[in-house]
Amino acid sequence: MRATTLPHRATKGKRTMSVVMLEKCRENIQKQLDNVVDFWLKYSHDRVHGGFFTCIGRDGNIYDELKYVWLQGRQVWMYCRLYRTMDRFHKPEILEAAVAGGAFLRKFARVSNSSGQWKCAFCLTRDGKALKVQRTIFSECFYIMAMDELSKVTGDKDMQLEAEQMMEQLIYWVQVDPSGLGRPQLPGEVPINSLSVPMMLMCLVQQITEGRGQEVSQKYKELGIWCVQQILQHIQRAGTAILENVSVDGSELPGCQGRLQNPGHALEAGWFLMLYGAQWGDKEIQRTAIRNFVELPYQYGWDKEHGGLFYFLDVDGHCPTQLEWSMKLWWPHCEALIAFLMAYNHTRKPELLEIFSEVYQYTFSHFPDAENGEWFGYLTQEGKVALDFKGGPFKGFFHVPRCLYMCERILDDLLENKD
Amino acid sequence: MRATTLPHRATKGKRTMSVVMLEKCRENIQKQLDNVVDFWLKYSHDRVHGGFFTCIGRDGNIYDELKYVWLQGRQVWMYCRLYRTMDRFHKPEILEAAVAGGAFLRKFARVSNSSGQWKCAFCLTRDGKALKVQRTIFSECFYIMAMDELSKVTGDKDMQLEAEQMMEQLIYWVQVDPSGLGRPQLPGEVPINSLSVPMMLMCLVQQITEGRGQEVSQKYKELGIWCVQQILQHIQRAGTAILENVSVDGSELPGCQGRLQNPGHALEAGWFLMLYGAQWGDKEIQRTAIRNFVELPYQYGWDKEHGGLFYFLDVDGHCPTQLEWSMKLWWPHCEALIAFLMAYNHTRKPELLEIFSEVYQYTFSHFPDAENGEWFGYLTQEGKVALDFKGGPFKGFFHVPRCLYMCERILDDLLENKD
Repeated sequence: MRATTLPHRATKGKRTMSVVMLEKCRENIQKQLDNVVDFWLKYSHDRVHGGFFTCIGRDGNIYDELKYVWLQGRQVWMYCRLYRTMDRFHKPEILEAAVAGGAFLRKFARVSNSSGQWKCAFCLTRDGKALKVQRTIFSECFYIMAMDELSKVTGDKDMQLEAEQMMEQLIYWVQVDPSGLGRPQLPGEVPINSLSVPMMLMCLVQQITEGRGQEVSQKYKELGIWCVQQILQHIQRAGTAILENVSVDGSELPGCQGRLQNPGHALEAGWFLMLYGAQWGDKEIQRTAIRNFVELPYQYGWDKEHGGLFYFLDVDGHCPTQLEWSMKLWWPHCEALIAFLMAYNHTRKPELLEIFSEVYQYTFSHFPDAENGEWFGYLTQEGKVALDFKGGPFKGFFHVPRCLYMCERILDDLLENKD
Repeated sequence: MRATTLPHRATKGKRTMSVVMLEKCRENIQKQLDNVVDFWLKYSHDRVHGGFFTCIGRDGNIYDELKYVWLQGRQVWMYCRLYRTMDRFHKPEILEAAVAGGAFLRKFARVSNSSGQWKCAFCLTRDGKALKVQRTIFSECFYIMAMDELSKVTGDKDMQLEAEQMMEQLIYWVQVDPSGLGRPQLPGEVPINSLSVPMMLMCLVQQITEGRGQEVSQKYKELGIWCVQQILQHIQRAGTAILENVSVDGSELPGCQGRLQNPGHALEAGWFLMLYGAQWGDKEIQRTAIRNFVELPYQYGWDKEHGGLFYFLDVDGHCPTQLEWSMKLWWPHCEALIAFLMAYNHTRKPELLEIFSEVYQYTFSHFPDAENGEWFGYLTQEGKVALDFKGGPFKGFFHVPRCLYMCERILDDLLENKD
């Protein structure tokens, strides 16, 4: 479970990484993915009420029976993606778990709101009663990802249609009228372009159009262009910063909100943009993605003293007001691994592989739990485990396996096309 | 600014604290209070738009112009209380600041909600436009505290009436129908008795009745009894734990929510209960307060390894899901200082003074900023400053000066009545 022999950043002079090392890296990542899949197959399935437990302690114990909808949707998506695209996970037990999870979601996640629009709950009781509804779009995003990917596996047209209908709803909330989300409009509020929104919409466009042919691709083409434009608005200060929140016309906002940086989000947007660039053959977007959304967030987001990526920063160096700003979370490191490996695969620039190697060393020497499997999610700035559960309200079967899955595939590609 | 010579917990055998030491302690606390009042007088007043800046950096810089309503109300209250009860703060500049802050609050804090009830915003722009409304009662609580205390200073009957009317609104939300708070009722929700609610209501009863004569006192007597009963429901597990959330019939709730402990809240409730017991001559409540809400939270809430009080704990020893659970925040330490000094003053039991001394040592060697004045608010588990601002969305001119003010008065009383 420990770090493999990839060269450390200290060996900066040495600008190549051998094929042997890339192979060792792939081997470790494969093992980790198997380990993580096993953990969730073993501990997370609720065989009484359906759906997945997501509050899972260090050793697999269920410390809370609540079911978080983001994580239900993400787990369905991840099982389906593994089942559909990787031979060793094309197993009945994975398909069955995904189908059962999807049925639970369809039965319980949707709640009606006062204006009769489709809204999903954020959190359900074990038996599926809505407990909390967020006034954002994210439960719906992960619902769509689950339904679409599940329909790709099962061929269920109804489910595909449901994903597309929910998508129309989302687009309406984001581009036309957000009032159906339930947040009252207040006189002091200004509309905001928050990076997570176009980023998630772009992810959904890629999800929904993948393998669906020209017609569907064309249907969402304009939305994709809009998402790119919205994401690029976050490049601020003459290209030296990615800011998490900007105004809808792409200018900087005042105060903490305007100065906030979230390196993990920027890196995630980076590899979404690279995929978009690859899909549409847009090399300029790929260059921008790598320069501004991959290299740059690493430059300002990496903790030079203790290693690891900060969770939040303030572009002017003020102390962020988020209490957890200096903690090292698992998911920004997952996004960084994907982003740097993908960027290297596109460019073959050795410095990108070196940074991948540095992130890899930090990640695999800090997050995986060699004793009980899976990864810890939350470290102190100094790298000590601060919260020791494997699943919680925001950590489920998603960032870790998606990262390992993406990296394994990119490494396969790299090793097949070694020059 | 550093710790005085109070005996450390290590000197456990020595069961007395000399009068000289108590005098040194009072002297330090007086100096700290002067320092903290100066800091807020100097940096927090917005002379253009009125109200108080609350996002104030380490050295007094305003890093965000937003105005948080909890903190506006608390600052008005604290200025008035100091002006009204302490000779050295009976100064025009303090009264003027309080009056100006009160005018800003009255002009801008209240927003109408859809059902025509009175609701206060949580956050305002610099010029007073509502930016965020919470679906809880707390903005209203601090609005009431401000209006009532200000009316005590100015004799303004309208303001007193407004405080009482808002209080009626609060009682209706808490005891009859919470729907006016704007949170939709969901099928998975169960009504909850959250410690902060009866605790704040009890604080308001004490505020509103203080010095208002028999009639007002009688008017709120039943509500006070109800608050005590609601607070005592949080004593769980055969008296071995204070749980933050219980069911409305006083039984334990399932999951993380039910197992949550917040030692700072328990300690705060402890000294509110002691005051209540003193007011009504109820010695049994005072004993319960000291045993269950002062000694007990210290026993489970104190970090034996690094010192300081944890922010959140899980009664069964699971890891809390709050990312900041192991951080040391300024306010639980403020509440602990008041609670232990008051408990000692009631009982004269040396062991209570010893724990006061231990908390005092930790607090004064970690939180005050000797360089720029005021206190840091957020430390890591190990006691390092994690967020270095003096004011933020939840830290204003309240817990620190209230603690210093209360402790100075109790020390005065102790030193006048030394046996």
